[in-house]
Amino acid sequence: MTVNISDIKVLAFDVFGTVVDWHGSIAREVNAMGLGLDGHAFASAWRKGYVPAMDRVRKGELGWTKIDDLHRMILDTVLAKFQVTGLSPDAIAHLNKVWHRLDPWPDTVAGLQRLKSKFTICTLSNGNLSLLANMAKRAGLPWDLILSAEVFHHYKPDPQAYLGVGRVFDLPAAQTMLVAAHKEDLRAAAGNGMRTAFVTRPLEFGSGRTVDISRDAAFDFHATDFLDLASQLGC
Amino acid sequence: MTVNISDIKVLAFDVFGTVVDWHGSIAREVNAMGLGLDGHAFASAWRKGYVPAMDRVRKGELGWTKIDDLHRMILDTVLAKFQVTGLSPDAIAHLNKVWHRLDPWPDTVAGLQRLKSKFTICTLSNGNLSLLANMAKRAGLPWDLILSAEVFHHYKPDPQAYLGVGRVFDLPAAQTMLVAAHKEDLRAAAGNGMRTAFVTRPLEFGSGRTVDISRDAAFDFHATDFLDLASQLGC
Repeated sequence: MTVNISDIKVLAFDVFGTVVDWHGSIAREVNAMGLGLDGHAFASAWRKGYVPAMDRVRKGELGWTKIDDLHRMILDTVLAKFQVTGLSPDAIAHLNKVWHRLDPWPDTVAGLQRLKSKFTICTLSNGNLSLLANMAKRAGLPWDLILSAEVFHHYKPDPQAYLGVGRVFDLPAAQTMLVAAHKEDLRAAAGNGMRTAFVTRPLEFGSGRTVDISRDAAFDFHATDFLDLASQLGC
Repeated sequence: MTVNISDIKVLAFDVFGTVVDWHGSIAREVNAMGLGLDGHAFASAWRKGYVPAMDRVRKGELGWTKIDDLHRMILDTVLAKFQVTGLSPDAIAHLNKVWHRLDPWPDTVAGLQRLKSKFTICTLSNGNLSLLANMAKRAGLPWDLILSAEVFHHYKPDPQAYLGVGRVFDLPAAQTMLVAAHKEDLRAAAGNGMRTAFVTRPLEFGSGRTVDISRDAAFDFHATDFLDLASQLGC
């Protein structure tokens, strides 16, 4: 597949795992709570509920529900599973918003700054708008626009989410590119006409888990981080 | 009315006229086209079609239509009225996007930077998302989040637009404040529970037009520009 880089106008970024280190950030915060919990196991258990929860919305079993609320539903079950009792309602609400306080990968901010010099950069995340705005404010993520499933009322991998980027910017899908660390996300984007950049994040699930970071010819770019992607795109 | 500033979490800004100088920017660009047009009259005529066009959407006569497309419908009538012929389709499309290239008022960027240090700052504009994103990228407007009627599919002054700010941020409306140069916009915001800051922009319609910049006790703050507002809010 040949791509003319000058045809690409908008880079849309997956966020959880691609831009920020959800696993490490949550593990650190949970460990720091001093409850004797295994932060890594806790983060993994919480994330495990994520796709099934969105699927309930995607299938219509639940009306539109933003990620903050889905995270809370999952958190309540995880707290029960880990036999955590005695947290105040405020403490639980604060913990639920750890997703607003995720740390970027070391290359993220510098890479986005370079990419922003040539392209319009936006999010295309299942995270809700306030989550993404709070995260960006705290971490200094220089988005030109925050786009979210909340704008389209469709979670990825629903086609409406991917097609929404081109619709918002009045561009053919082929002039927009999804940047993501997840092959299934990229395959869905490509299936809806977007260009695709695979960025490997081998530590997304912590140091003990194997992640598929193999090159896949189906994607237009394969980069080891955002700085590498910026160089490949001529930024 | 007493306001506890520490209760206010989000400042939502009207954009056209409040943040950017639409009249001067359009007049300058139209004058620079060298067609012998009166840029000030042209800008005024274009803007005059704005509220009626949105009203057609608000009343359901037109399905959801973004401002870029409403601007284009109005532009076509204005070009005819000013007897402009011979512009290429590309030139008309480019002119239509002058709304993406509006210049900020002199105090805007410095004021927003100060306000951003204490509050979450977002747009609440009838402009579409790409228009607002392109404007922010060009002018260096440091929004934490770009919110638009396009997100809610409701134009101001529909209640859904004002209530949308609190819903997005999971806050009571009283913890959000509209900043605007237009009293009718502020009255609608207050009617939906928001706090209100009136910022006077006496030159919004050019130097020849009188603008109502009188103090109105119905609003929580009255400021001469964003720097004044920042000082009043303790930024």
